[in-house]
Amino acid sequence: MPPDQRNTSKPRFAHPRAQGRNAGRTPARQGGDGLPPGEGWIWGRHAVLAALSNPRRGLISLHVTRNSAKDLDAAMCARLAPQIEEPAQISVRLPDTAVHQGFALKAKALTPEPVQAVLDPTHGLLVVLDQITDPHNVGAIFRSAAAFGARAIITQDRKSPPLFGTVCKSAVGCAEKVGHVEVTNIANTLQAFRDEGRYVIGLAGEAETSLAAAVQTGADIMGRTTGLVLVLGSEDKGLRPRVADHCDMLARIPMGPKAESLNVSNAAAVALYEASRHDPRINPA
Amino acid sequence: MPPDQRNTSKPRFAHPRAQGRNAGRTPARQGGDGLPPGEGWIWGRHAVLAALSNPRRGLISLHVTRNSAKDLDAAMCARLAPQIEEPAQISVRLPDTAVHQGFALKAKALTPEPVQAVLDPTHGLLVVLDQITDPHNVGAIFRSAAAFGARAIITQDRKSPPLFGTVCKSAVGCAEKVGHVEVTNIANTLQAFRDEGRYVIGLAGEAETSLAAAVQTGADIMGRTTGLVLVLGSEDKGLRPRVADHCDMLARIPMGPKAESLNVSNAAAVALYEASRHDPRINPA
Repeated sequence: MPPDQRNTSKPRFAHPRAQGRNAGRTPARQGGDGLPPGEGWIWGRHAVLAALSNPRRGLISLHVTRNSAKDLDAAMCARLAPQIEEPAQISVRLPDTAVHQGFALKAKALTPEPVQAVLDPTHGLLVVLDQITDPHNVGAIFRSAAAFGARAIITQDRKSPPLFGTVCKSAVGCAEKVGHVEVTNIANTLQAFRDEGRYVIGLAGEAETSLAAAVQTGADIMGRTTGLVLVLGSEDKGLRPRVADHCDMLARIPMGPKAESLNVSNAAAVALYEASRHDPRINPA
Repeated sequence: MPPDQRNTSKPRFAHPRAQGRNAGRTPARQGGDGLPPGEGWIWGRHAVLAALSNPRRGLISLHVTRNSAKDLDAAMCARLAPQIEEPAQISVRLPDTAVHQGFALKAKALTPEPVQAVLDPTHGLLVVLDQITDPHNVGAIFRSAAAFGARAIITQDRKSPPLFGTVCKSAVGCAEKVGHVEVTNIANTLQAFRDEGRYVIGLAGEAETSLAAAVQTGADIMGRTTGLVLVLGSEDKGLRPRVADHCDMLARIPMGPKAESLNVSNAAAVALYEASRHDPRINPA
């Protein structure tokens, strides 16, 4: 890799540590159905059982069918007594499109972790989502992040869907298992990661360097890949210019001539898979 | 790789060439909204423009907003005169959840290709979907298949969603760009591929061999990876036993302890990415 492909632009913004003051707040967003801020519905078997098993998740009320109640263990019932309802009674609590499988949980938002908890390269692989709003995609990325051993997902506060509903359903429980950090400024956060010795790779279809080459470069520089930061932009607009400017390297997933891009959750899965090649927990030497 | 991991079971069924007699028929399924068999709606900008550009796609009627009409070129309008409508007029033609972006096309089903068109290893990389029914996933897999240069997707007739509506929307035009073969028996078809010298890899979380090792083995045996066949099962049940029995090798995507599996379209993207490493069109030496 020629050295001029390493992005050496200086940070243009205030130091990102200032984000820490907001990192622990409860998001002032709704999970749907007119619930108060910081509350929302979770539905689907995997998503609800994982939330009930997550001590960090505040629980409000649990609504299950008689049949689904058999899947609740004693510890879950001790945390929150289930209300046995008919499927249709559960459905009316939820958005029309919710496929609840006999499980609905009214819960509190998870408190995001502070960015300081994941700054250091030894804290593990990170995924940064730059204004990705589709809840199916965000949920699927949580699932892939869990599968490939990522430490946390970083989103921008007020620009990403809350961890309720469709996000949790698509994550099949993994929204409870992967760390989540909310920041106010993605570009500044990337610079903070670089200042701590992390290597930041932004996915961009127009980049010259391949994903594999960029991951190898990061692994060589850091002596590990679990310190990588993978940054994904929205399908419509890609990475915003200020975010791209704050990556060490922009990289593309090599593709043939018939398609311009992948679904963003598929691109995230490919990037996580490539990064996980160097993770001895997943691919022992 | 120990040789006992290569699946050497004999075919238990009639020879799959018999499938050829059905491979060219028009699917007797509906695209929704009570249309006759073999007709359906396609919506969304990319999906509709790609269908209008596909000479194999039969067109019935085109409904666009005044603004969307600007995206139609002369060749498209010559094939089918657009009807200019208000967004709400277009919406009532479509399922409630359709986000049409000002584009709706009533079209005929694509005629699937016969399996003979893709039997030989020189015909290119194939993806086989064993009873994957979610149209978002099937559409995203078409998109990834196009991105990574796959020749065709094989589905089981009557057990997979038709190439209309959500499949086409999720494929953002790629349902028109990748070949599609429908077969009556997946296991027999895999055996036919093996008889022609293709190497068939089934994805299975419980397999011992890694995806990368299986792809490398296939590439070594065939002298190319574009002759690979990648087989994906449903998220609920995985590969059916008879289908798994007819793979040369079962392989897993290496993962950490926090998740059992990936979303199936994400697993397909990872498998296609791994296979495409050996494709000189995508990764020149």
